[in-house]
Amino acid sequence: MKAWLAPMLTLALPLLIAAAPAEPPKTPSAAEIVAASPASDWRPIDPQNTIYLDLPKGRVIIELAPAFAPNHVANIKALARAHYFDNAYVVRAQDNYVVQWSQPDAKRPLGAGHDTLKAEFDRPIAGAPLPFTPLPDPDTYAPEVGFSDGFPAARDGALGKAWLTHCYGMVGAGRDNDADSGGGAELYAVIGHAPRNLDRNVTLVGRVVQGIELMSSMPRGTGDLGFYEHPEERIPIKAITVAADLPPDQRLDLETVRTDSVTFARLVEIRRHRHDDWYKVASGHVDVCNVKVPVRVRGAK
Amino acid sequence: MKAWLAPMLTLALPLLIAAAPAEPPKTPSAAEIVAASPASDWRPIDPQNTIYLDLPKGRVIIELAPAFAPNHVANIKALARAHYFDNAYVVRAQDNYVVQWSQPDAKRPLGAGHDTLKAEFDRPIAGAPLPFTPLPDPDTYAPEVGFSDGFPAARDGALGKAWLTHCYGMVGAGRDNDADSGGGAELYAVIGHAPRNLDRNVTLVGRVVQGIELMSSMPRGTGDLGFYEHPEERIPIKAITVAADLPPDQRLDLETVRTDSVTFARLVEIRRHRHDDWYKVASGHVDVCNVKVPVRVRGAK
Repeated sequence: MKAWLAPMLTLALPLLIAAAPAEPPKTPSAAEIVAASPASDWRPIDPQNTIYLDLPKGRVIIELAPAFAPNHVANIKALARAHYFDNAYVVRAQDNYVVQWSQPDAKRPLGAGHDTLKAEFDRPIAGAPLPFTPLPDPDTYAPEVGFSDGFPAARDGALGKAWLTHCYGMVGAGRDNDADSGGGAELYAVIGHAPRNLDRNVTLVGRVVQGIELMSSMPRGTGDLGFYEHPEERIPIKAITVAADLPPDQRLDLETVRTDSVTFARLVEIRRHRHDDWYKVASGHVDVCNVKVPVRVRGAK
Repeated sequence: MKAWLAPMLTLALPLLIAAAPAEPPKTPSAAEIVAASPASDWRPIDPQNTIYLDLPKGRVIIELAPAFAPNHVANIKALARAHYFDNAYVVRAQDNYVVQWSQPDAKRPLGAGHDTLKAEFDRPIAGAPLPFTPLPDPDTYAPEVGFSDGFPAARDGALGKAWLTHCYGMVGAGRDNDADSGGGAELYAVIGHAPRNLDRNVTLVGRVVQGIELMSSMPRGTGDLGFYEHPEERIPIKAITVAADLPPDQRLDLETVRTDSVTFARLVEIRRHRHDDWYKVASGHVDVCNVKVPVRVRGAK
């Protein structure tokens, strides 16, 4: 604000009024853009790719990403359907990092689904079609970032690879030291500043589309890496359920803005060039983890 | 990992053993670097620039940044010393954004310190010396980012300005629509992914150096912008105290790694090039909000 005003002060007042550079026009709010969006700029969230995680304080809804981690997604669904996650626990809450859940006393082999899978840290850009809406601003970590069908992602043309990025609310498959030691029986959600150094080191399997605040507000564990030191601190998970396995009246039918739509492009632009009564300086930029992809009950306004 | 192995597979095995490119050497951990650091790579955190915020579950310690916001820092200390914050409240907890505290029923004028101040969104690079250790990687939002005496910051040589960046745990002065309507009577801390679009739109006044998890784990408010809808949901603040005003035996003497030190440079480098038994692909990059500046009790090892 001061920067814009300073040059004006050297001008005589009448000239100032006539020739002052116009203030940038006020941008609409995200809510206004969403309210004005056509139905065709939304896609339903597929209940076959949706899991419900039931906590004492409510439900966390996760959209899975089979385009990036098909084997992990299939395994998580198989484990859920075999009731592997019934009476599981959140065992770790590390501040500014992750909440993690598992069956802490599970014996291997699990007897349901696969114990471990080959890592799906990234995927080829070529092959199965990969929608990708790039963002225009530089990224610290990757040559190119953007959104693939709702998910934050990065691409590297030289490597020929694409991968999901560790933004707030992303869900990944914990693993041991071996790259292929994860599988989905132990999962985590990001609850802090995006730990992008984890990109391509862990298989990301989806994104929380509702209820992340139930996880991010959990008491932090006081053990190493934020693990709860005492079993009674663990937070019980009643079950994980594939949404499609519930009768329709027990599902929440959600839809999300298509990230290849005009509505999404407008939402990105107001994040980059927001100017209104409150914002004085538009950043002119946005990072991939600072773009919110709206999710709502289908058909809601 | 796969990317490194792939080229080897075309080589005959004996040659592979002889000529395989060496794995990147394992990097030390942050804890190992800190343990090996000389005392001269640390600076004490000045109790005159430190405030304690006492919550029911414990104490949050904030280091103030007079080099960037001298007037706001002086005002916050004056307000604290006038007991303005006694029996204040956390009134807002918005997920992936901020926790905010104030005297929600305060009448203006406050009668202690200044109600409002001219904004200190940025400061000249010239003038009072401004230490600055730049980071080598591109930033989405600013031409240059780095650390200034412990604080994450950005610079723009063309503008001739420097400013603090909205990283996790940074503390700012809430304001109304007018740029000069803040002052420090209402403060917030970042508890989510860095909302860097706020940079240069709000006066940042300091950083939480201990206890941010007490704020980030607060229940989220269900009102607009995460405000608590009912007064009984607010979380009481017993008082805010300038550390220097307490007898030495009631202070916690802290020190922080000097961000112009070799130790800090090593910590940045392992964030960029971490390779160990767990990390398979070093990101090769780090963003300004993903660098942790260690803080410890003075002289601790």
